[in-house]
Amino acid sequence: MRVIGIDPGLRNLGWGIVDVAGTRVSHVANGICKSTSGGPLAQRLLSLHSQLEEVIRRHQPTTSAVENTFVNKDGAGTLKLGQARGICLLVPAQFGLEVAEYAPNAVKKVVVGVGHADKKQVLHMVKMQLGGVDPVGPDAADALAIALCHAHHAQFSGRLDAALAKAETRKGAA
Amino acid sequence: MRVIGIDPGLRNLGWGIVDVAGTRVSHVANGICKSTSGGPLAQRLLSLHSQLEEVIRRHQPTTSAVENTFVNKDGAGTLKLGQARGICLLVPAQFGLEVAEYAPNAVKKVVVGVGHADKKQVLHMVKMQLGGVDPVGPDAADALAIALCHAHHAQFSGRLDAALAKAETRKGAA
Repeated sequence: MRVIGIDPGLRNLGWGIVDVAGTRVSHVANGICKSTSGGPLAQRLLSLHSQLEEVIRRHQPTTSAVENTFVNKDGAGTLKLGQARGICLLVPAQFGLEVAEYAPNAVKKVVVGVGHADKKQVLHMVKMQLGGVDPVGPDAADALAIALCHAHHAQFSGRLDAALAKAETRKGAA
Repeated sequence: MRVIGIDPGLRNLGWGIVDVAGTRVSHVANGICKSTSGGPLAQRLLSLHSQLEEVIRRHQPTTSAVENTFVNKDGAGTLKLGQARGICLLVPAQFGLEVAEYAPNAVKKVVVGVGHADKKQVLHMVKMQLGGVDPVGPDAADALAIALCHAHHAQFSGRLDAALAKAETRKGAA
């Protein structure tokens, strides 16, 4: 399983990709899709769409996870983030990938162990869990954390399914 | 010039298309792209994207205008609208169209004459200006109003350009 994690943003859209094989998770790539402020909004979204398409085409993830968040400061900021987030959800769906959504606190809880960890702690744990990789920026680090969160969830539900199947077999044999 | 006006929404995304020839504006088509609530958000956005693509492919507008709005009630609602709005801006840009943005009050001011007109007044003026057309729903009526607003702006700036060119010619001749 290859997971792409996506941290939505209009100016800086972080992405991070990890491979999951059994209990082993390894780093594939990470980066940031950028759109410079000032240009027409539709062109910025079009540029982010093309960049993210290129990332998925190049690295061929098999599943995806997007951070589910909203800034509460002001409506205009939330709308901007929403527009970028629409693109983040659309592109993997256009490639036929499932798109999981995780709240920021859920991501931190899985990756760091507590829901209110700061950026430094997240970066530290991402590095530790991915063999010392140095993400290109904080948005890419967040994206890798989202990918790790999805990987752990998938491993957990895989183990759960296996345990349930085993219990079912035992019940059948008894 | 053929204008598509788009009224963003996650459940009901209104669209309306008008032709502009000189000072004459005529109705081409209107409709609503729908995504049923409950399904995964990425799939809903993917569905809206495909439906809007199909509308543009079928009716071949040459320019576009999208309502620029944000609900202020709550962050979650604003984020949802933002996600749908991202798709509304992206699709025409993918077809190489310019995407104009108008605030709801600007649209009402142009179409009805006052910035705080209600839905009924907007519908009435849309019908009157488009030869009695009956839009398929309020979101389609709003989309036609956005298209009308853009048509009027284009006509006005066209006349302004012509007047400026004429003044320039006179100055040159003097």
